[in-house]
Amino acid sequence: MGTIITISRQYGSGGRIVAQLVAKQLGYQFYDRALIDRAAEESGFSTHHINESGEYATSSSSLLFGLSVANTMGQGGMSLYDNVYLAQSKVIRAIADSEENAVIVGRCADYILRERAHCLHVFLHADVESRLRRAVEEYGEADAKSEKFLREKDKRRKVYYRTYTGENWGEAQNYHLTLDTGLLGIETCADLITRAVQAMQ
Amino acid sequence: MGTIITISRQYGSGGRIVAQLVAKQLGYQFYDRALIDRAAEESGFSTHHINESGEYATSSSSLLFGLSVANTMGQGGMSLYDNVYLAQSKVIRAIADSEENAVIVGRCADYILRERAHCLHVFLHADVESRLRRAVEEYGEADAKSEKFLREKDKRRKVYYRTYTGENWGEAQNYHLTLDTGLLGIETCADLITRAVQAMQ
Repeated sequence: MGTIITISRQYGSGGRIVAQLVAKQLGYQFYDRALIDRAAEESGFSTHHINESGEYATSSSSLLFGLSVANTMGQGGMSLYDNVYLAQSKVIRAIADSEENAVIVGRCADYILRERAHCLHVFLHADVESRLRRAVEEYGEADAKSEKFLREKDKRRKVYYRTYTGENWGEAQNYHLTLDTGLLGIETCADLITRAVQAMQ
Repeated sequence: MGTIITISRQYGSGGRIVAQLVAKQLGYQFYDRALIDRAAEESGFSTHHINESGEYATSSSSLLFGLSVANTMGQGGMSLYDNVYLAQSKVIRAIADSEENAVIVGRCADYILRERAHCLHVFLHADVESRLRRAVEEYGEADAKSEKFLREKDKRRKVYYRTYTGENWGEAQNYHLTLDTGLLGIETCADLITRAVQAMQ
């Protein structure tokens, strides 16, 4: 059975870069957009739709958003978002069932694989300043000027996670390892994850 | 300015042992019961009272406990527990203001030192089986037979933390590093904390 590292992360914490570094250091497969594409191919949904669903879920606090979800309702009362989530879950389980070692970023992979052995579930976060700086400098996000911008991003990921797992996003007990990339830095975080995986074996 | 590592932990996660290992590896001072004693000396409270306050705080869900706290009310509407918390906070700040490097276990030290530079705030947790096993084998706690026992312990620490910090205990964002001692093991956790501190310097 392969080892799977799942990496959940706050927007702007550099989680994707950490995940890539870990995959490189350990020689593991890396799944992020590649995962989206595989899910898209298997389910027939367009990549555009699946991309959006990575951060949006029905929220009672957003009427406008609620309406846009309602418009996508398909057969059996399941929204497009629900169908995409199911398609992604299938792909994640297929990766976990294969013999390969892999790093999977986001997509509630930690929850989907919570009962599986040989998994290290990681959550990455950072202080507001580091996240805004990274959003502007590395992601080219011109609107990332205030904490409010980040709070909105966090809220969406929180709602998405809550909707599909019933759990609280970012609670230490749901992960084997959580790290502050702002204080520790990207390289140290990748190094600590790599060491944790090596110690498990 | 010295480096301070604060270690918060679930009951039965082996947090105290990890903290001792880290202190030994780094040559840092270790504060746990020693901290209680210093706080006791400075405030004039007996060690017995201070020991209890490490896990108890007023909880609206426990009438009996509420009554026992009410009985300890002293001058100015502050309970004995509040006074003990203030005395402990003073000691923790005195350690942080000194030049020494230190590992401090529990006592909301992470919150008390949240604005201080050169701190690594750590939270340790573990699965139910590991915690029950440790409670019986290492702490000699004969009553540790079910998840309910642990839930009660968790609830007390949660209420205590919430009462004195207004924050949620065990939320990843409040710590620089959180670790599952059940999956990773005591030695690996100590090693990862030590590496994180070394990388900060």
